[in-house]
Amino acid sequence: MQKYFISRECFERRVLEGDTAFQIKTVLRGKIKDQFLLGVDAQSYLVEITKMTSKEVFFEVIEEQTKNVELPFVVDLYQGFPKGDKLEQIIKYGTQLGMGAIYPVIMKRSVVKIENSKKEVKQKRYQKIAVEAAEQSLRNQVPFVAMITELDKIDFSSYDVKLLCYEESAKNQETSEFKKQICSLKPGNRVAVVVGPEGGIDPKEKSFLEQQGFVCVGLGPRILRTETVVLYVLSAISYEWELGK
Amino acid sequence: MQKYFISRECFERRVLEGDTAFQIKTVLRGKIKDQFLLGVDAQSYLVEITKMTSKEVFFEVIEEQTKNVELPFVVDLYQGFPKGDKLEQIIKYGTQLGMGAIYPVIMKRSVVKIENSKKEVKQKRYQKIAVEAAEQSLRNQVPFVAMITELDKIDFSSYDVKLLCYEESAKNQETSEFKKQICSLKPGNRVAVVVGPEGGIDPKEKSFLEQQGFVCVGLGPRILRTETVVLYVLSAISYEWELGK
Repeated sequence: MQKYFISRECFERRVLEGDTAFQIKTVLRGKIKDQFLLGVDAQSYLVEITKMTSKEVFFEVIEEQTKNVELPFVVDLYQGFPKGDKLEQIIKYGTQLGMGAIYPVIMKRSVVKIENSKKEVKQKRYQKIAVEAAEQSLRNQVPFVAMITELDKIDFSSYDVKLLCYEESAKNQETSEFKKQICSLKPGNRVAVVVGPEGGIDPKEKSFLEQQGFVCVGLGPRILRTETVVLYVLSAISYEWELGK
Repeated sequence: MQKYFISRECFERRVLEGDTAFQIKTVLRGKIKDQFLLGVDAQSYLVEITKMTSKEVFFEVIEEQTKNVELPFVVDLYQGFPKGDKLEQIIKYGTQLGMGAIYPVIMKRSVVKIENSKKEVKQKRYQKIAVEAAEQSLRNQVPFVAMITELDKIDFSSYDVKLLCYEESAKNQETSEFKKQICSLKPGNRVAVVVGPEGGIDPKEKSFLEQQGFVCVGLGPRILRTETVVLYVLSAISYEWELGK
C-alpha cells in the first residue's frame, strides 16, 4: 500500500495538495474510496479518498496504524561526503534499513568541494529522497537530512554509543568491538555512526573523534566501500535486535 | 593496494596483457618496482613490476598472500531479475559483502524481458562488474555470474541451506526463522538465497521452491526493496560468524 508523509496542518484539514495530490490524482489515477497510508510526524493512518477537486484530494481517516517498524534505537549516520551520487544511494538504502538521521560531513579526505550557496539546494534534494524512501519502505518516520557540515562543528554529547567505522581496525583483524557495542545497547539508546569518505578517516579526525568518546570498530575481513558501511551496520543491528532466535 | 584477477596461464608466464596492462601502465602510470596484488583462481600474490613494453607488464612474485577474506560459507544468490540498473548494484554490493555466485532469474513478476540473443552480452558485462568489485574489495575469489536463467531450470540439490526471502513472512511478523537458519550453519555449508523481483514471489514459485526444500524467512519489520535484501542477508551472516563478541 502506498504511503505519503504530510504535515500535521494538512492532516488536520483532511486535505492533500501540491505534489502529493498530483501523484494520487494524476499519476496513480486515484478514485473515491481508494485507501492509502498517511504519515504525520511519527504516527500513521489508514485513510480513504472522499472527494477530489482539480488540485486537492480530500480524505477521511479509517484507523490509526499502531504497527511500529522503527529500530529500537536511534541510529544516526555522520557520513564523510563521498563522490558522485553515492550520498543519494546511502540515503535510499539507509532509510530502508532504519537509519535515524544523516549528517553529510565534509571531511579532510572528501574530494568533493561544495560551495556554501549550494548547500541548501542539496539538503532539500537529499531530504526529498529520504521522504520517498521512507514512503516506499513504510517507515513511521522520515530520516532527517542535516545541512552539509564539518566534523568540528558537531555536538556528539547526546549519544550513548559512538562508533567510528575504521578500515584499519578491519585490516588489523579487530573483530570483536562492533558486536560488543551492539549487544550492549539498551532500548531507546542513541547511536552515532561515523563513516569516512572514499579515502578514509584522517589521523587527526580519528583523534578528535576518540576524544569525543568514539570507539573504533572493524566490520569483518573484506574492504567495504564507503557507501556500503552503514548498510552493514544497520543490517547487523536489525539482525541482532529485531530477529528472534 | 590495487588487486587484479588474471588467468593462471598469464600468471605462469609472469606477464600482464590487454586491459590490465593498460590500466597499470597508462591509467595508473605504473613504474618498475611498483607492487600490487594478483588474484589467480582463489590464490593471491604480492608482485612487483620488473619490466614494461608497449603492451605488456612483466612482474615477479614477492610472496603469496595467505589472508582469507571469504565468508566461511558459500552464499549464492538467485535474484529475480529487477528493473533498471539494479542488478549491477546488487552485483557491486553483493561482491563487497562476500557473495559466492549470482544467478539472475527471470521470474513471473519480472517486468524486464530479455531476448535470448542479448543474454550472453549481458552476462559478460555483469561478470566484468563482479571482477572489478572483487578487485576493489580484495576478495580472494570473483563471484561467478551465471547466464540469465529461469527458476525451473535450476538444480538446487547441492545446497545445505535454502532461504526464500519472503516479504509476506516479514509482514506476518515472522521474525525467528532467518536467525535460526543462520546460527545453524556449519563451516563450508552451501547456502542458496532466493530474492524475488520488485513485485515479489508468485505463489506458484513459492510452492515450487518449498518443494525444493526452501524455508521462508522474514528480515525484520521494514519493507526492503529487492536490491537491498541480499545486502541484509550477507551483512547478517558476516556479523554472526565473522565478528567475535
